[in-house]
Amino acid sequence: MNLPDPLKNIRIVMCTTAHPGNIGSAARAMRTMGITDLALVNPKRYPHPESQWFAAGAMDVLDAARVCCSLDEALAGVSFAVACTARRRDIATPMVDARAAALEGAGLARVQKVAFVFGNETYGLTNEEVSRCNLLASIPVDPEFFSLNVAAAVQVFCYELRMACGGALPAERPPQLAALSEVEAFYGHLESTLVETGFHDPRQPRKLMQRLRRLFGRVRLHTEEVNILRGILSSLVRPKSRTRGTES
Amino acid sequence: MNLPDPLKNIRIVMCTTAHPGNIGSAARAMRTMGITDLALVNPKRYPHPESQWFAAGAMDVLDAARVCCSLDEALAGVSFAVACTARRRDIATPMVDARAAALEGAGLARVQKVAFVFGNETYGLTNEEVSRCNLLASIPVDPEFFSLNVAAAVQVFCYELRMACGGALPAERPPQLAALSEVEAFYGHLESTLVETGFHDPRQPRKLMQRLRRLFGRVRLHTEEVNILRGILSSLVRPKSRTRGTES
Repeated sequence: MNLPDPLKNIRIVMCTTAHPGNIGSAARAMRTMGITDLALVNPKRYPHPESQWFAAGAMDVLDAARVCCSLDEALAGVSFAVACTARRRDIATPMVDARAAALEGAGLARVQKVAFVFGNETYGLTNEEVSRCNLLASIPVDPEFFSLNVAAAVQVFCYELRMACGGALPAERPPQLAALSEVEAFYGHLESTLVETGFHDPRQPRKLMQRLRRLFGRVRLHTEEVNILRGILSSLVRPKSRTRGTES
Repeated sequence: MNLPDPLKNIRIVMCTTAHPGNIGSAARAMRTMGITDLALVNPKRYPHPESQWFAAGAMDVLDAARVCCSLDEALAGVSFAVACTARRRDIATPMVDARAAALEGAGLARVQKVAFVFGNETYGLTNEEVSRCNLLASIPVDPEFFSLNVAAAVQVFCYELRMACGGALPAERPPQLAALSEVEAFYGHLESTLVETGFHDPRQPRKLMQRLRRLFGRVRLHTEEVNILRGILSSLVRPKSRTRGTES
């Protein structure tokens, strides 16, 4: 079964947004996360040059945004709606955090349209609007400072949706670690150098080599790094010391 | 061992930020997540009324922000620094996503200062700045639209830090579910009603009751909801049907 990209089935709905800049910022936040379907319910000032300014390059999202007269109109074709809200309600709708809502929404969006609904900057979503939704979702905030900007909230939800869709970073070429035998040879070189320079006395070892092994073991040395370290070690011991046995 | 709140040990560092509005938005994003330590390295225009405007109520964060002449100065007292960057680098510093970086940073911040470092709006962090950090971290974005606003990036990282510190929603009183015996009594009532009203024929069951059990099982019914449903069922069957045997 070849299912579509769930992010294409996610709709962001902004209700009675007051500041046109927030609509632009939200469009940009959506676009960076690969979400492009925006519906605006009775925006106070729209269209407006500030929306375009804050959208940066996400003009395609703004251009395609639908302006609706009601939340019902904005939810046309949607099977599951999440009310994004900062405050608890006396409504029986279950409440989860943004991550859980994104996981459920992204899962459902594999086969149907799913909406995330955001309210006005000052008073949030009305109870009437929340009652249209299946789930209440909230971003955990400092209980002493509740003032999350609506475009920042859109950013967090869209980010969580991308993460929920397996939005991992493009695979990085894993580093080429030095072979353990190369690292062992380095430890041998290190120990003999420390003996030769006088720092390490094998008769009173004080767990020194064990500690150094622990340190370099955490580093996960690359081949070229081993080469650099051994170059440094070699530079510490002058040729005359290396041939001490033949000194006069 | 009574460890301090790790969010109090997180420092946000913004390097050569061009737009004062982004500094204000970042302060607000930090404050909503309970992070208050902000350092600004050579901001282009600061202080500036736009910063205050975008900070909304987070003036305490702006007022306490330190303006520094170098990243080294901003990192004073810090033990672990994360370079937050949109692009991969030819640097051996390991790269992880924002969530992994927040988990590691929040863990370390229980016992020491940890910094998250953000670059200029246009060119991000310089390689010089990145080399001061222990870890590269990136927010997964749509590869075709890379333009994440710096304050939005601060928002996502601070949100992930709060989540990493167990920033769950304040505990909600769990709903009082109906006892399973009450739900079973409801199923019995439902079945007998459907038989009496003629919808359900127990000789041709078509898995009807099984399907209805599955549906109501998902709902996790509350006691008063069971009462409402049984009230509805009772209302469907008129007294005369109940006493069918005594009809003339």
